[in-house]
Amino acid sequence: MVHGGDIYGLNRPVTDFSANGNPLGLPEGVQNAVKGCMDACARYPDPYCRELVKSLAGFERVRAEQILCGNGAADLIFRLALAVKPQKALLPAPTFSEYEQALHTVGCKISYAELREEKGFRPDKSFLEGIVPGISMVFFCNPNNPTGIAASKEFVLDIAKQCQKIGALLVVDECFQLFLDNPELTSVVPLLDDFRNVLVLKAFTKIFGMPGLRLGYCISSNRTLLDTMRECGQPWAVSVPAQAAGIAAVNEGEYLEETRRLIPEEREFLRNGLKKLGVICYASEANYLFFKVPGDLSLKERLLEEGFLIRSCGNYPGLTGEYYRIAVRTRQENVRLLEAMGKVLKA
Amino acid sequence: MVHGGDIYGLNRPVTDFSANGNPLGLPEGVQNAVKGCMDACARYPDPYCRELVKSLAGFERVRAEQILCGNGAADLIFRLALAVKPQKALLPAPTFSEYEQALHTVGCKISYAELREEKGFRPDKSFLEGIVPGISMVFFCNPNNPTGIAASKEFVLDIAKQCQKIGALLVVDECFQLFLDNPELTSVVPLLDDFRNVLVLKAFTKIFGMPGLRLGYCISSNRTLLDTMRECGQPWAVSVPAQAAGIAAVNEGEYLEETRRLIPEEREFLRNGLKKLGVICYASEANYLFFKVPGDLSLKERLLEEGFLIRSCGNYPGLTGEYYRIAVRTRQENVRLLEAMGKVLKA
Repeated sequence: MVHGGDIYGLNRPVTDFSANGNPLGLPEGVQNAVKGCMDACARYPDPYCRELVKSLAGFERVRAEQILCGNGAADLIFRLALAVKPQKALLPAPTFSEYEQALHTVGCKISYAELREEKGFRPDKSFLEGIVPGISMVFFCNPNNPTGIAASKEFVLDIAKQCQKIGALLVVDECFQLFLDNPELTSVVPLLDDFRNVLVLKAFTKIFGMPGLRLGYCISSNRTLLDTMRECGQPWAVSVPAQAAGIAAVNEGEYLEETRRLIPEEREFLRNGLKKLGVICYASEANYLFFKVPGDLSLKERLLEEGFLIRSCGNYPGLTGEYYRIAVRTRQENVRLLEAMGKVLKA
Repeated sequence: MVHGGDIYGLNRPVTDFSANGNPLGLPEGVQNAVKGCMDACARYPDPYCRELVKSLAGFERVRAEQILCGNGAADLIFRLALAVKPQKALLPAPTFSEYEQALHTVGCKISYAELREEKGFRPDKSFLEGIVPGISMVFFCNPNNPTGIAASKEFVLDIAKQCQKIGALLVVDECFQLFLDNPELTSVVPLLDDFRNVLVLKAFTKIFGMPGLRLGYCISSNRTLLDTMRECGQPWAVSVPAQAAGIAAVNEGEYLEETRRLIPEEREFLRNGLKKLGVICYASEANYLFFKVPGDLSLKERLLEEGFLIRSCGNYPGLTGEYYRIAVRTRQENVRLLEAMGKVLKA
């Protein structure tokens, strides 16, 4: 599977719009925490991430025993598949490709609930209708990746209830949620006490601009599930630097505020720019934009020649090579990307 | 499973003899590499670890395509189990417990080849006789953990041939090999071109004193197996700091030399001290010692009261609570441990 963000195989430096990080980079407090943990790196990490879990519990307003940490959210997705070993799972299409790859490792059959272009890739009742007996696991990415479309808390609640009815586990991926203008309108974390069949994925990777450090976690009231997931991988998955970074990150309130001022402004700036270029731009509310250039299958390659890496979405089930995703970055970088796009789209 | 090294759940500071790291701590070059990679942490890690793999290939004198990196060797053990999904595997008893835990995640049945106390826990012909049709995976830890007993390259070659005969995969765990006086007498890495059914596990975690950073790798001529293992987990398992640390570590020749001067000297110092205390000490050649205090099931607890954490081996299949493992540390720490042991054993 080809992902965004692999700038290492390129033979030239690029500005990377293909990975959805925080354009502000690592908060300084996080950097200092990592630089200061060298002595601790000579020891094994705390397998239970005790101090980190305590910090996260405060940050998320949940109980510590509801949290399991991983080497990025992706680590937890693979553990989930191995812990549950579902026979059949339901995924939206398009969505983040790691769910499918993780499910394949345990031979799980996958049904797709197609998100339709004519509905702006917004999930609706038909998604609920796809949750039928025989399905034991449902993934729902909110906001979705690569589309950036966010569903309301009420809609996710309907999914959770339907899953409860048929005995399925619902995995809600909220890794990009803190980039939304109003995360509290979509997050189901406050409802977890009522739904033992729901697990929410979260990542510091994205919101705190530290994908290279690898830190994700999940929240659920089903402690048995979390314990099984712990057994479905090594005990020392979360490195000492990642634990130190996470503990420092929860105190980065100003950084978060700056992020949440920057992202909506730059997202709309980029969206307006794209629209002026005649590109079909969908209603992303996240820190990335999803768009279509009808008939254009080589925009990525042409932008690469201009020094920009964007994400071609042709390898997502349900999409074609005319679809692309770009991250929202700083004003200067966004201006330069729009200029380059104007150039290559005119040519 | 209780492991060594979990000092985080204790309510007092201890000197940790329960985890087998390098007592010299992180090499300075590695520390600087980690402190210097903060900008890179704002990006996803290279999923193919291209630069690191190139460095490791030079270090190990193998081809780059024979290497796969992981989030510590433990990550690779779980990927192996998932990639192969063996029906039945053979393990020595006692040995490192993660093999068993990883095999359990895929429902694998396990046979044990008992290493016998009367033979000093040294593997012999009977291990070869346990490799019979029906077994599809064999683990062999060399030097073994917790015993520290090293087998010759010729003996491992016999295992590899027997595995080849019955179509089994042999996993040789050489994570502690560089602590041996003569690693070249035991390592099967130079033979891998002739044995596509062999995979060797290696870790920088131990030899470069950086278990908190998490970096392991494996070497095999079976590229299909390595590719399947890559698919059996997330693409970004090896963090940016771990990759930077590994690239820096291969240049730490002096640190390695100092380690290899220190370990044999301190191991024999500790062993002599243990013998004087009337403890039964086995023939470890690694950076840890394995011993028995007949009838004593509470040595760990009593030493904890003195401020020392050692590894009780009672939860290893094939062992009882009379067996213990301690790491080889610096002279000052070793002296203090022996004094404390003298005190509690006399009491």
